Amino acid sequence: MFKTEYTLDVRYYETDTMGIVHHSNYLRYFECGRNQMMKELGIPIEVLERAGVMLPVVKVEISYKAPAYMGDSLKIVTTVNREPLAKIVLEQQIFNQKDELICYGTVTVGFIDSVTRRPVRVPQLFAEKIAPFFTNGEKKL
Amino acid sequence: MFKTEYTLDVRYYETDTMGIVHHSNYLRYFECGRNQMMKELGIPIEVLERAGVMLPVVKVEISYKAPAYMGDSLKIVTTVNREPLAKIVLEQQIFNQKDELICYGTVTVGFIDSVTRRPVRVPQLFAEKIAPFFTNGEKKL
Amino acid sequence: MFKTEYTLDVRYYETDTMGIVHHSNYLRYFECGRNQMMKELGIPIEVLERAGVMLPVVKVEISYKAPAYMGDSLKIVTTVNREPLAKIVLEQQIFNQKDELICYGTVTVGFIDSVTRRPVRVPQLFAEKIAPFFTNGEKKL
Amino acid sequence: MFKTEYTLDVRYYETDTMGIVHHSNYLRYFECGRNQMMKELGIPIEVLERAGVMLPVVKVEISYKAPAYMGDSLKIVTTVNREPLAKIVLEQQIFNQKDELICYGTVTVGFIDSVTRRPVRVPQLFAEKIAPFFTNGEKKL
Repeated sequence: MFKTEYTLDVRYYETDTMGIVHHSNYLRYFECGRNQMMKELGIPIEVLERAGVMLPVVKVEISYKAPAYMGDSLKIVTTVNREPLAKIVLEQQIFNQKDELICYGTVTVGFIDSVTRRPVRVPQLFAEKIAPFFTNGEKKL
Repeated sequence: MFKTEYTLDVRYYETDTMGIVHHSNYLRYFECGRNQMMKELGIPIEVLERAGVMLPVVKVEISYKAPAYMGDSLKIVTTVNREPLAKIVLEQQIFNQKDELICYGTVTVGFIDSVTRRPVRVPQLFAEKIAPFFTNGEKKL
Repeated sequence: MFKTEYTLDVRYYETDTMGIVHHSNYLRYFECGRNQMMKELGIPIEVLERAGVMLPVVKVEISYKAPAYMGDSLKIVTTVNREPLAKIVLEQQIFNQKDELICYGTVTVGFIDSVTRRPVRVPQLFAEKIAPFFTNGEKKL
Repeated sequence: MFKTEYTLDVRYYETDTMGIVHHSNYLRYFECGRNQMMKELGIPIEVLERAGVMLPVVKVEISYKAPAYMGDSLKIVTTVNREPLAKIVLEQQIFNQKDELICYGTVTVGFIDSVTRRPVRVPQLFAEKIAPFFTNGEKKL
């Protein structure tokens, strides 16, 4: 299991006429959480891209529970429960400063070669970094 | 069944370092499609909001099949298969100019009172407009 | 003189808590207007980029006169008054459906080589397309 | 003189096909810097809005000097040189982690009543907080 947290403040332009954060922005916050995870693993996304691998999102499921507002500080919790083989499946939640659940979801990310744009297996660079967080016998994706 | 189509061009700032439309933008395109549906029903979202009803998104499931690029013209297809009672469930697909499927998903939208911010049933204004598209015996949400 | 018009509808997520289009979005609308200009010239931005030339914005001056709202249809007017040599200077205005001026500004765009990322003079591809719109004796930038 | 600094990381979706931060986003970063200034003054923007005052941007001049990339950490420096009377004029610069100047500009912000949407003079709430940073004899806007 690999888990990270990332905190960010709501930005004014992210709110809409309803006075709340527009629902599309939570996908962007989720991504900030994933990129923080990559950073903590020691392979920031821009480093992985320079190594010729890109990580397109292939699926998202997200449920919205409560609105976030300008002035809120949000915590994005990102968890990888199974060692990735061909894809990474991430569980993500967002909480506000009162620890209320704003939204949660599951994001599936693939690996592609940046030149051929074809799917590839998990790159060695990434596999080595994340392996220590998973026990040997754990089920792979 | 109620179905609409809306066409838009990819905008440059919607692409990212991968050179493709960022995955969060498809939620925004989906919304453009839903707002076009509201317009065709005769109750644009801004009219409904002035009548005191807001439509927050409560859930999204989206699968990405192929990337979209700058220069692409995208068609957003929005379908409501069941007459809404408390929530609207919309099936949405996006195709490019070559009729390739870019992504598809299911979006669930609720109704809330803009003052109390509490959930309300489908507003009369909306119910009357959409009812004719559904047969009497059809199952409601 | 070369002039184009492009029309777009305000999108819900572009509005903010003030209930109006966020001021940053007008720079994006301006860009939509410029890309429409490139399309009408016969060299869409993505074609020019594939030819190895990129067009970074180097300066923007923008004045906001009236707000735009969800439901508004906006017309972006883009004018090039002088034949570009090293940079393109564009005058841009945005009007709503009641022909009220929303904002106006001046945008300066440069040309750079997409590999070296160094400034280059106006590419032949572009120069040939835009030249016919300017009289011979006209002052160059 | 009142001056604040705010640091943020480039987000992936803020980059474009050129692989650099899209020029429109710097207006958003500028706003983050201004909102940080309001916070440090003790009147966060959402507090001022609840008090019935909104701060629309009326003019922006921005010059882009160098691109920012994914992985960059940006520092937004915001300075108010003259005590605001009817409008606030802010000088803003953005630097990357190598202290290179990315862009700089001048942003003019007005005060409007959130109900009437008419311009108002600087609200007492704001005037009292910012006055101590300016000497008595300093020229007002």
